[in-house]
Amino acid sequence: MELESAQIVRGIGDDCALLRLKVHEELAVTTDFSIEGRHFRLEWHTPESVGHRAMARSLSDLAAMGAKPVAAFVSLALPKTLTVIGKRNTKSWLDRFYDGLLALAAEEDAPLAGGDLSESPIVVVDVILTGSVPRGKAMLRSGAQVGDRIFVTGALGGALLGLRVLEENVGRELSESERNYALHRHLYPQPRIAQGLDLRGQASAAMDLSDGLSTDLARLCAESKVGAEIDAGKLPRAPGVTLDEALHGGDDYELLFTAPAKCKIPAEIKGVAVTEIGRIVKRKGIKLIDGKKRGVLEAKGWEHFA
Amino acid sequence: MELESAQIVRGIGDDCALLRLKVHEELAVTTDFSIEGRHFRLEWHTPESVGHRAMARSLSDLAAMGAKPVAAFVSLALPKTLTVIGKRNTKSWLDRFYDGLLALAAEEDAPLAGGDLSESPIVVVDVILTGSVPRGKAMLRSGAQVGDRIFVTGALGGALLGLRVLEENVGRELSESERNYALHRHLYPQPRIAQGLDLRGQASAAMDLSDGLSTDLARLCAESKVGAEIDAGKLPRAPGVTLDEALHGGDDYELLFTAPAKCKIPAEIKGVAVTEIGRIVKRKGIKLIDGKKRGVLEAKGWEHFA
Repeated sequence: MELESAQIVRGIGDDCALLRLKVHEELAVTTDFSIEGRHFRLEWHTPESVGHRAMARSLSDLAAMGAKPVAAFVSLALPKTLTVIGKRNTKSWLDRFYDGLLALAAEEDAPLAGGDLSESPIVVVDVILTGSVPRGKAMLRSGAQVGDRIFVTGALGGALLGLRVLEENVGRELSESERNYALHRHLYPQPRIAQGLDLRGQASAAMDLSDGLSTDLARLCAESKVGAEIDAGKLPRAPGVTLDEALHGGDDYELLFTAPAKCKIPAEIKGVAVTEIGRIVKRKGIKLIDGKKRGVLEAKGWEHFA
Repeated sequence: MELESAQIVRGIGDDCALLRLKVHEELAVTTDFSIEGRHFRLEWHTPESVGHRAMARSLSDLAAMGAKPVAAFVSLALPKTLTVIGKRNTKSWLDRFYDGLLALAAEEDAPLAGGDLSESPIVVVDVILTGSVPRGKAMLRSGAQVGDRIFVTGALGGALLGLRVLEENVGRELSESERNYALHRHLYPQPRIAQGLDLRGQASAAMDLSDGLSTDLARLCAESKVGAEIDAGKLPRAPGVTLDEALHGGDDYELLFTAPAKCKIPAEIKGVAVTEIGRIVKRKGIKLIDGKKRGVLEAKGWEHFA
């Protein structure tokens, strides 16, 4: 087992938290909003799911760099009514939110070291995650080389399908197991921390799939100044998911990474499938190869200002 | 001049930023919300002031620990309308917000290394600051000892008076210079980074005055497991400010600190006055000594859920 790589010298209770790193480590820092009406709805998402998803979003950014969680910070603004304990002493929304958030944080060894709490007319969560990575070893978006193969972990499109189930906007029949799987993928996405740690040193570039493959792959290619070709038939789709949902659906929090052709990438890492989906090419832009068709893959994932 | 104590290895553009520390340094981390309708109003505060104040809140937490800024992260949620460029090509609210925020960040050497941007019905800002401090040298709230003297930097109550000017709720006549001074203190508070660095090694305990002296001193005393006596006559009040405003007014972002009786604290640090206002005592609770009157000082500062 890896020794504790960093330490929270001082957590909640002072003006700042204090963190220590080992010599030869860098600190990865990420911050992600989850906003009521934008990233979740109180009528669709349980408080536990809102907490889980907010923590998953930021943990997934650490996973993408190959960083190991050091400490989490949670800034939470919410209406006062959500802090009130329910009838018959049931937990408040706030308590249930923290149950969901802290359960995932505990699972991924990301202790809470601070944050902020404020009143607000809508719920706004900002989760800040810090993680440690050996100096110079973080996986970046900019390292993809022409000839590298492109991979994803897990299966794609499930989180978007789950959202469509919640919206009652699927537009086709799903089996009960497809429906339940998709709902679970949307409500309780699993950040790929262990897979990110494992890929460090193997992947030439990596990022997490938060906004959808078509949008995120375009970003990785832009940072690496390369293009890509994707094989539609190879895309690992979550059960019941269409090709379009797999290509453009956000919130999957799987890892997208590239590796040199000679590098042996296993078909599974710590219980999660790894699938080769295409290759890095010199010519800019993303091409989708679907049987004999070959077309431009437009970025149609999540936009921050829709 | 102090050498660069830490380094942003990678800033905006990847899944995480990457920070390096020198050996024997710790990283201080703080996060503070600024929420429309709660911490500011679009009709009272210019965009530049909203940005400045959001940055000042978090820088002030670093100052309180004696930390030197390393990198800032800004998460901003706002209505799409505020991102639009005005008529005759005037700047958008968003651009003017960043002008204010980045001007203060540049002044205090806190480069922007990341953040998040999202659409939201109200403006919500979360500023995360990281700073470096030599290992074990951070000023904490918990270090005050019986017999220590209590000090504040600058003058108190000005920011609250400025808010009352904006609210047209002063209830008395002010001179034009009192009015302008108070407005400036409210709109453009100055975090005490240089003073915090100077006090490191001298102060036994420190925190910043964000919620008001009566509330914040009670917190410092609770962390240090001591009590305090404050001399009303010694409190440095901003021009035109009442005793109550100086005792309970928030948002001043001055430093509150304690030092052993034998420690020589100068009357001014880097151009900012330092005033002794009382002493740490064994008996819990805060006493206010006002001439011959001696009473309990109740915490009447800012509450996160009012």
